Amino acid sequence: MAYFPEVPVIPFEGAASNNPLCFRHYRADELVEGKAMRDHLRFAVCFWHTFRGQGADPFGPGCALRPWEDGTHSLEMARTRIKVAFEFMSKLGVPFYCFHDRDVAPEGANLRETNHLLDQVVPTLKAEQERTGIRLLWGTANLFSHPRYVHGAATSCQADVFAFAAAQVKKAIEVTHQLGGENYVFWGGREGYSCLWNTDLKREQDHLARFLHMAVEFKKQIGFQGQFLIEPKPKEPTVHQYDFDAAAVVAFLRTYGLSDHFKLNVETNHATLAGHTMMHELAYASMHGLLGSIDANRGDLLLGWDTDQFPTDLYLTTSCMLVILAQGGLAPGGINFDAKVRRESFEPVDLFHAHIGGMDAFAQGLKIASRMRADGVLKDFLKDRYATWDSGLGTEIESGRMTFGSLEQYMLERGDAAPRRSGRQEWFENVLNRYLTSS
Amino acid sequence: MAYFPEVPVIPFEGAASNNPLCFRHYRADELVEGKAMRDHLRFAVCFWHTFRGQGADPFGPGCALRPWEDGTHSLEMARTRIKVAFEFMSKLGVPFYCFHDRDVAPEGANLRETNHLLDQVVPTLKAEQERTGIRLLWGTANLFSHPRYVHGAATSCQADVFAFAAAQVKKAIEVTHQLGGENYVFWGGREGYSCLWNTDLKREQDHLARFLHMAVEFKKQIGFQGQFLIEPKPKEPTVHQYDFDAAAVVAFLRTYGLSDHFKLNVETNHATLAGHTMMHELAYASMHGLLGSIDANRGDLLLGWDTDQFPTDLYLTTSCMLVILAQGGLAPGGINFDAKVRRESFEPVDLFHAHIGGMDAFAQGLKIASRMRADGVLKDFLKDRYATWDSGLGTEIESGRMTFGSLEQYMLERGDAAPRRSGRQEWFENVLNRYLTSS
Amino acid sequence: MAYFPEVPVIPFEGAASNNPLCFRHYRADELVEGKAMRDHLRFAVCFWHTFRGQGADPFGPGCALRPWEDGTHSLEMARTRIKVAFEFMSKLGVPFYCFHDRDVAPEGANLRETNHLLDQVVPTLKAEQERTGIRLLWGTANLFSHPRYVHGAATSCQADVFAFAAAQVKKAIEVTHQLGGENYVFWGGREGYSCLWNTDLKREQDHLARFLHMAVEFKKQIGFQGQFLIEPKPKEPTVHQYDFDAAAVVAFLRTYGLSDHFKLNVETNHATLAGHTMMHELAYASMHGLLGSIDANRGDLLLGWDTDQFPTDLYLTTSCMLVILAQGGLAPGGINFDAKVRRESFEPVDLFHAHIGGMDAFAQGLKIASRMRADGVLKDFLKDRYATWDSGLGTEIESGRMTFGSLEQYMLERGDAAPRRSGRQEWFENVLNRYLTSS
Amino acid sequence: MAYFPEVPVIPFEGAASNNPLCFRHYRADELVEGKAMRDHLRFAVCFWHTFRGQGADPFGPGCALRPWEDGTHSLEMARTRIKVAFEFMSKLGVPFYCFHDRDVAPEGANLRETNHLLDQVVPTLKAEQERTGIRLLWGTANLFSHPRYVHGAATSCQADVFAFAAAQVKKAIEVTHQLGGENYVFWGGREGYSCLWNTDLKREQDHLARFLHMAVEFKKQIGFQGQFLIEPKPKEPTVHQYDFDAAAVVAFLRTYGLSDHFKLNVETNHATLAGHTMMHELAYASMHGLLGSIDANRGDLLLGWDTDQFPTDLYLTTSCMLVILAQGGLAPGGINFDAKVRRESFEPVDLFHAHIGGMDAFAQGLKIASRMRADGVLKDFLKDRYATWDSGLGTEIESGRMTFGSLEQYMLERGDAAPRRSGRQEWFENVLNRYLTSS
Repeated sequence: MAYFPEVPVIPFEGAASNNPLCFRHYRADELVEGKAMRDHLRFAVCFWHTFRGQGADPFGPGCALRPWEDGTHSLEMARTRIKVAFEFMSKLGVPFYCFHDRDVAPEGANLRETNHLLDQVVPTLKAEQERTGIRLLWGTANLFSHPRYVHGAATSCQADVFAFAAAQVKKAIEVTHQLGGENYVFWGGREGYSCLWNTDLKREQDHLARFLHMAVEFKKQIGFQGQFLIEPKPKEPTVHQYDFDAAAVVAFLRTYGLSDHFKLNVETNHATLAGHTMMHELAYASMHGLLGSIDANRGDLLLGWDTDQFPTDLYLTTSCMLVILAQGGLAPGGINFDAKVRRESFEPVDLFHAHIGGMDAFAQGLKIASRMRADGVLKDFLKDRYATWDSGLGTEIESGRMTFGSLEQYMLERGDAAPRRSGRQEWFENVLNRYLTSS
Repeated sequence: MAYFPEVPVIPFEGAASNNPLCFRHYRADELVEGKAMRDHLRFAVCFWHTFRGQGADPFGPGCALRPWEDGTHSLEMARTRIKVAFEFMSKLGVPFYCFHDRDVAPEGANLRETNHLLDQVVPTLKAEQERTGIRLLWGTANLFSHPRYVHGAATSCQADVFAFAAAQVKKAIEVTHQLGGENYVFWGGREGYSCLWNTDLKREQDHLARFLHMAVEFKKQIGFQGQFLIEPKPKEPTVHQYDFDAAAVVAFLRTYGLSDHFKLNVETNHATLAGHTMMHELAYASMHGLLGSIDANRGDLLLGWDTDQFPTDLYLTTSCMLVILAQGGLAPGGINFDAKVRRESFEPVDLFHAHIGGMDAFAQGLKIASRMRADGVLKDFLKDRYATWDSGLGTEIESGRMTFGSLEQYMLERGDAAPRRSGRQEWFENVLNRYLTSS
Repeated sequence: MAYFPEVPVIPFEGAASNNPLCFRHYRADELVEGKAMRDHLRFAVCFWHTFRGQGADPFGPGCALRPWEDGTHSLEMARTRIKVAFEFMSKLGVPFYCFHDRDVAPEGANLRETNHLLDQVVPTLKAEQERTGIRLLWGTANLFSHPRYVHGAATSCQADVFAFAAAQVKKAIEVTHQLGGENYVFWGGREGYSCLWNTDLKREQDHLARFLHMAVEFKKQIGFQGQFLIEPKPKEPTVHQYDFDAAAVVAFLRTYGLSDHFKLNVETNHATLAGHTMMHELAYASMHGLLGSIDANRGDLLLGWDTDQFPTDLYLTTSCMLVILAQGGLAPGGINFDAKVRRESFEPVDLFHAHIGGMDAFAQGLKIASRMRADGVLKDFLKDRYATWDSGLGTEIESGRMTFGSLEQYMLERGDAAPRRSGRQEWFENVLNRYLTSS
Repeated sequence: MAYFPEVPVIPFEGAASNNPLCFRHYRADELVEGKAMRDHLRFAVCFWHTFRGQGADPFGPGCALRPWEDGTHSLEMARTRIKVAFEFMSKLGVPFYCFHDRDVAPEGANLRETNHLLDQVVPTLKAEQERTGIRLLWGTANLFSHPRYVHGAATSCQADVFAFAAAQVKKAIEVTHQLGGENYVFWGGREGYSCLWNTDLKREQDHLARFLHMAVEFKKQIGFQGQFLIEPKPKEPTVHQYDFDAAAVVAFLRTYGLSDHFKLNVETNHATLAGHTMMHELAYASMHGLLGSIDANRGDLLLGWDTDQFPTDLYLTTSCMLVILAQGGLAPGGINFDAKVRRESFEPVDLFHAHIGGMDAFAQGLKIASRMRADGVLKDFLKDRYATWDSGLGTEIESGRMTFGSLEQYMLERGDAAPRRSGRQEWFENVLNRYLTSS
């Protein structure tokens, strides 16, 4: 009411509406494959971009119009901002939000003060959660902005910085636990290097593993049941981050005995900066049983930095939802809009346009994916494509009964193997367009 | 004599020489850190680019002048070509070579015939090895050119193609073994996908793991003592290869229980196509104890395909040699020039210019790296940079005696942590230039 | 009939059909903005990819199944292939085709023989054109495959190669003229460099300009009325091509006094390899009055080479059609599918799937763009966004009546300027999705 | 003395020195090709990165230690900072500096106040110039940071913003003139678009041309003799900047009749972000007679943003100096270090390391290039490579006496053309290494 007076609760009006402030596809209660859209999509708004971002870029300061901001870093401002956030989220109708410790409370002169400041906003967050029914999808700690983290946090060349990071994450997990957070995310913005020449790669990764083992231990100690998630990103701010992509994280987790305790929070723009499609990263993580949650946004593939645009590409949202449906959903993870409006979109109402667009695109992606599944178009094709693996020779190989020797024998008799049928990629692309535009 | 009549055995003449057909830095017997350059560098010439490549690209056929080629695929031509190769390598003075099965012998109408053709060139290879003292660094199988592999080899959607690949690799390992090969390389050119929509990611990777387990079993069976190596590449010819980069291979090996049996053969241009520096990939593989061998070349970072240029950048060769020296060498691996002359460099003598340049650049890199090590420039800096980890708090953390709780306690008392000193990247870059140009 | 016996003339069946061999959106006679789709889109099939491409890539030879190919380079095979092409195009219902001289006839032992061979297929082409009513959108000469062009054609370091290229282009223009071609295209595949160190940049570009001036002169001489087109591409096969992008071509044309005689043939994948969206390149060329024709395809932005995929992305086709409609169409240019099926799509029917998908995607793009224009969504927004330029100060500036001095005076009085309103990018993206999926 | 007490005037000590605070190659008075290094290189320090940059990045605020900064934006702080700068530059021994209007003075509440503030620091700049002999290489205006420029400056959708930009540039040119600046630079950080859908491409570029014509007129009016320079950059902060690369600027200047009044200020990292090598951009600009000055830095080709690192790559500096020597120098332009220390290099002394490294690398590049020229290695090769153009057929073509007809006649008689000799790229690369490491 108070902060976005001109914007009502966003209604669902259906595909035909041209009201810019309505949903055309997202209808929280609509059942898809027997489950409500709300529970399939588990949308979250992120506190950082949406309530702390002002549109700054490396060539200019922020220029967003945010009438509620008073220009201070006071606790009062922090509490007001929380109210703004919950009004926004209520009007939007999202069930979740996410935050970093430093998004919601200012930093003090030392750890004690900083923790105290954070403690003072927790009741406001809790009260707003209760008032609105909006829950915490995940919390996290900002281990990248403060100058102390210039050389990294858990991978800093300084032991005292590691210690500070440990203390900070401990507090952030506690606060997440207090607020009923369903997950806790580790993103290592400065865990990597700017210069390999001055870096002890192995020692730094050993420290990171030690840090995460401590986190696991602490989680058990306090009985936090949320899922731990690691968010891969290849670079930016560092030249090379250790959690480069899903594969690098899997390699790390398996090398250090951590794979039972973490899943992945996969972000679209991070996937593409690492040279993968989002669908690849999702399918790869899912194949390892490690797809936990997603940071939904979109990059510009002609730009080499993290643009964090809102995900409105229906090819993207459809491919995401196919992987998510195939693994039976994301819960306790969700779809967090780690996305920001462009600097040029500086009016408050742009925040609504942006989130509505992302939510509708995912809702549409969900419906398209679901119809493709109902019709079995992909499944039937794959069934036929891999048919030779479902009997005879294929079964013998998969069951472990064949060796190089027996296979050579088989092939000496057979002579040669020839391609059986086309991969039909172009046909697939046409099928996809058929589903896309008849949704 | 016969095939490069105008080129003598390439002599060492020292840095001052401007004879284009001499070494200015590579002197096989020169001791560096107590070991001959020959044994540090273990150079190999690759058969494919150097003796089968003709300069074809997607827009035109080959145009290389190779007077010994008669335009046929006969066995006689195959044997002649082997003699050309050994003359070339003898004149160059490299101790090793590498080949794919299909580089050295033509393909027949079926597996039996093809194997038979391969068997018929092995004696020639063996005789030339004995005559010249040149050894086989590694053998491998071409599982990507033949149409049967259009959908992959070990990851084909067809079981019979998997079987053919198994038989082919069995034979290639046998031949490598016969020729005393010191390693055997797996590069999965078509082990990946062009279209994720028609691909069962998990099933294909399960098949790849099964295939490699069979290879390990077969290796034991025949007593082949060579090292198995996997060569990462992110893409090309496929849109996405499973062995994307070193991290993806580590994730795969650890997931499927294969990490004791394989190391990595890291290639510069594959590293950069995957978004990493070569130094990163080497350091990463080495940190895991998995750096086995390197494919030495260079990409053009403004181009998005594998240009396989000869490695003449001294910053590159110095960084490679620092990692290699740090891990005590590459043996039984080596430095294989998986590199090709440009299409415009179509004369036979260009093959000499190219290899001389690569060998000299690595020899120089070796000398520069060794002097940097002797002076301790990097080591001393790192020692100081990580000093807080070598006593007190750092030791407590590394030893596993600290928890989030004890670290929070420590930091509440301490208050905060501040950056201790600059990372000095610019100073490093100056130091590097100092060593580079006074070599 | 003869060559694709299982494929009928492709019918229009509408959006609801799931027949893979029908059009769901392309209906040649359907009027859009008062003009038939056929005349808006002016589709052409390219001879090279579709009838000469076999799926070869740098790691393997072609593996396409083309039952009509006899493995020879005979004239008879050339004539048969032309019949295959016209059967294919007739069934598809496209009004145009395009070819390189070397696509339709083999190369002989010297220029005279080669020209003679070309002359012998022209009657077949002409007869098929007459039989089917399919016309030649444009002809061109292949100046990149033959080894003589290894160092370039018009920009070769050899004057005799320039001369050969001139003779070849002369012949290609003549043949295009004979066949009633509506345009003639210059694509400089090897007009650039692999190595700047051995290249005289200015002299080579002077030669290119001289070459094009000769072409203009020749065109006048024979009365060829077709439009000359230059096709930009940044790289591949060369490291850097002179016609890098639309801007580089405009700079070249204006510098050498050629801008009245050439327009641009813009290709999607070339645009993206140069770091631009296709929409940018189209809008840029159109703004200069130089948008002549398009090569319709699609790249994979995570790959760094020209993948030439079929254009099925509706965001892409919609943006193309908006620019094309805004400039009143492309004629005498058209939309040429310079696209190829994937190597894995090796069956003849895949050629139909691919073209149907591209045609439908452009037809849909046309309809979406047209509805957006009818509703004025973009126009109205732009009108308002630039409103301050349509009166007062804006008009004063545009008319040339203001100077730095008068503007300073104005601003000293006014004090400052502030942003008027948001750029509304997110709203636009939502609007686009609304039109896209209700088409 | 006052601000860098521990750093002396940087002495020249020669290649053997390992003093980190000395020049090993740059000796201002040393003659190369008869001209002092100082006059070849015309080094400038940039005010923005070096004295206003604090190491902020999109993920954290600045953390540089700058003891002289008092945290205010006062005029006094501005004057102190100027003194710091001149002490730094004097100790470094550079003859030039560059600045934006907003680097040296704070912004006031309106244009009048802002201009007044700028006027108040000009005497300090002038006094320091006179005291030290350091001159202004170029001035420029910051038209990208202030929120008023969110939609562009000369290309804003708002006429009043254009007017403000005009007034601001007028003042910046006046101040540059007052301080004896030898050039004035236009860099259009926000002259481009974030979203092509909401942009009138042609109208915006028309406005830009109008703006530059006004600048030319104003320059004449006040008798400013300095060279006007345009600095290309492809993107960042915008998604696409109008001055994308050298070719785009040439196209623009020629289209709008501005090419007699502007040259280019070419920056390495901008070149590579646009897909070109720096050597390409320099050679291209020089070929057009438009190479005016350079912004010397270096990008990281595996990162997609402007990293502005110091130029220490000797391959880069050598290639730059070859082009610069070939055109007879850069004056009145120079080599401006538009480069910044890494965020991790936060100590004041790092500013010295960084600049010393860049200066030495260019000095070395100059010496290497000069020796290559003295030996004629490139020239002789090129002479031979293009030999067929220097007589006979080549001369006939270049002189304009040949036509397509006469060339066809020539080639019908001749039959064919064949490649004459290899491009020898690998040989070149070896030669380059020979010169590089014997400097």
